[in-house]
Amino acid sequence: MTPREQAVAARAAGHRLRALSTAQRGRLLRRVASTLEADAATILAANEQDLRRGEGVLSDALMARLHITIDKLESLADGIRTLSEMDEPIGRVLRRTELAEGLSLREITSPLGVLLVIFESRPDALPQVASLALRSGNGLILKGGSEAAETNRALHGLITAALRPDVPPEAIGLVETRAEVGDLLALDDVIDLVIPRGSNAMVRHIQDNTRIPVLGHADGICHVFVDASAEPEMAEAIVIDAKTDYPAACNAMETVLIHQSYPHGDALRDALRGAGVSLFEGPDVDFGTEYGELACSVRIVDDLDAAIAHIHRHGSGHTDAIVTADPVCAEAFLDRVDSACVFHNASTRFADGYRFGLGAEVGISTSRIHARGPVGVEGLLTTRWQLVGQGDTVAPFSAGARRFTHRALE
Amino acid sequence: MTPREQAVAARAAGHRLRALSTAQRGRLLRRVASTLEADAATILAANEQDLRRGEGVLSDALMARLHITIDKLESLADGIRTLSEMDEPIGRVLRRTELAEGLSLREITSPLGVLLVIFESRPDALPQVASLALRSGNGLILKGGSEAAETNRALHGLITAALRPDVPPEAIGLVETRAEVGDLLALDDVIDLVIPRGSNAMVRHIQDNTRIPVLGHADGICHVFVDASAEPEMAEAIVIDAKTDYPAACNAMETVLIHQSYPHGDALRDALRGAGVSLFEGPDVDFGTEYGELACSVRIVDDLDAAIAHIHRHGSGHTDAIVTADPVCAEAFLDRVDSACVFHNASTRFADGYRFGLGAEVGISTSRIHARGPVGVEGLLTTRWQLVGQGDTVAPFSAGARRFTHRALE
Repeated sequence: MTPREQAVAARAAGHRLRALSTAQRGRLLRRVASTLEADAATILAANEQDLRRGEGVLSDALMARLHITIDKLESLADGIRTLSEMDEPIGRVLRRTELAEGLSLREITSPLGVLLVIFESRPDALPQVASLALRSGNGLILKGGSEAAETNRALHGLITAALRPDVPPEAIGLVETRAEVGDLLALDDVIDLVIPRGSNAMVRHIQDNTRIPVLGHADGICHVFVDASAEPEMAEAIVIDAKTDYPAACNAMETVLIHQSYPHGDALRDALRGAGVSLFEGPDVDFGTEYGELACSVRIVDDLDAAIAHIHRHGSGHTDAIVTADPVCAEAFLDRVDSACVFHNASTRFADGYRFGLGAEVGISTSRIHARGPVGVEGLLTTRWQLVGQGDTVAPFSAGARRFTHRALE
Repeated sequence: MTPREQAVAARAAGHRLRALSTAQRGRLLRRVASTLEADAATILAANEQDLRRGEGVLSDALMARLHITIDKLESLADGIRTLSEMDEPIGRVLRRTELAEGLSLREITSPLGVLLVIFESRPDALPQVASLALRSGNGLILKGGSEAAETNRALHGLITAALRPDVPPEAIGLVETRAEVGDLLALDDVIDLVIPRGSNAMVRHIQDNTRIPVLGHADGICHVFVDASAEPEMAEAIVIDAKTDYPAACNAMETVLIHQSYPHGDALRDALRGAGVSLFEGPDVDFGTEYGELACSVRIVDDLDAAIAHIHRHGSGHTDAIVTADPVCAEAFLDRVDSACVFHNASTRFADGYRFGLGAEVGISTSRIHARGPVGVEGLLTTRWQLVGQGDTVAPFSAGARRFTHRALE
């Protein structure tokens, strides 16, 4: 199949998927969960091949991300079973209005259509994303990393087999080459949303090469502002957690802003250095740097306004936190910092779909439209308006013979 | 000011605007409404200049759209006063979750940032769009049609004067040349949403020339499917209304699909012809045509499936209606037709922000992401996540010392 045929087939299969009942879609997800456990041997054997090919070529970190274990498969299966039990997201009524006597309007949630998800080495993304697409009634095309080709093929084969007989396997397509991705990115008439999960460079490349809306983020330049009134133990704990818990994550802190009147700045620096963090401070620092490792920028700021101005100027609108004991300051920061996630006395690392209780996460969006911050199933839905009348026409309204009531129902 | 300076100033002024209280923003809108009535003479004099310049150059239809009257100004002012009374759209809490003991998350509505609205000859769009931007806390840059240059300048001058002293006049910018629009469309780091209101060609040109998300629609190819069981009087009334009430509107019907077993097809054709509508039927018809005048395509279809397949293939996903007395058929049509608006026994002409009770309309979106169908104030908002903790870090959760509760609040 050409990429276009694949996308068109995914769209058609998506229509079949959304026509299933909630119970049927739930059973389908449970079959996907079961196959990950029942056919673990197949998946692990394929993963073994990828790992052998990667040996001596990939970094230790990449090898670790590539590695699939029985434990990982079981926790993936658990996650998918949780997803199978969540309230039906499709067809949820968001609003009901009586427009006029006998003429009633409702706005309902509805699948987006076809998603293109491009992810790098971590193959456990494949079953996660596939389950989210199934839950939300969307067709899906996946492109995984070439390092994980065998694992992805095995996972894809098992998952699409589990769709039968309810939904054709084309509901979830897999492509393996960059050329195919290039072709898919041109299909803005068939594909509705692209979700790139990978390096900043990869995300930016995709944003620059498609007219399809892209959900995701290129940069994660997150700040912690330590206010004058911050409790020193709390400031230290949050700053250390935000930087060191997982420095490569997009929600890790890259810059700590310290109020000029905060009395424990040196102790805070010592704590960071003690945790192995290199500090960059002074006139030559590029505050747009996403270190992604045990390093961060430090800046002394005059006051809250200066901290907010710094964040708006150098941040990426991802996640920014204030540590303060002053409720007025906290409120002002929460109100005024215009980022997807704004935190008071909490680590930036909480910015995550699972931690936010969204069930699962397709990614974190720094886009301002459609979905913002951690995105779960809801970000894969759109809405439709359904109007039910009795033969109503607009002419009598224009003529003044009938009047709109615009009464909210329920 | 350069276009970039103008956009940056609009963003900063937007921050001032959203910092106002609900009462202050309400008063500001009422001042805008009042100036349209109190300074009507200034506006009408400017409009007179535009009309004089257009005489013999513009079509009668364009001249009518350009013409501002006292009545129009009064009804604009009324609409803005209604908007000033609506519930505060900014900062509305959409969701509140306790993530863990003492750690609470909320999702709130928030202004998008800066809007760029490009509209053609109708100058009454200017006060409407300006009020929607004020209500939703967004900065705005407007580009009006050159035919209405004097009217737009007068309206813009009065409205920005009414912002003082609460908000700097840069909150609402006006540009007059195409070159400036070209510059603005490149500013995807400062402008958050482009809303083109005008011809299909204009909308498509903009979509092709910017990376900023575009809210709107190029085509409005709307269908009415007359099912076998449709009551003939109802079918006739809806089809006539959908086609003839305002043939140039995007929600006007372009194609009527007639079930092969509908017994009154000829009478329906006669009724359309009687209303002055030219019918195009047969193998050579291009079903992708948006006539925009008293003309439409006609096609006989085998059944509901064929009607839906036709709509998905040739439609623009705007508004499609079924006329049927069969509730099963109606339900299937409403469920399966994947358009922004899907109607049963009602004219496609109801697809409109005012008729839907949204208060006002910035446009109708056929995009599947962000906002779909008629878009009111809500489409000009995004969301933010606010998390309030007590010094919380993720490490104890990873270590199993603390557990997420994920309890929905309220």
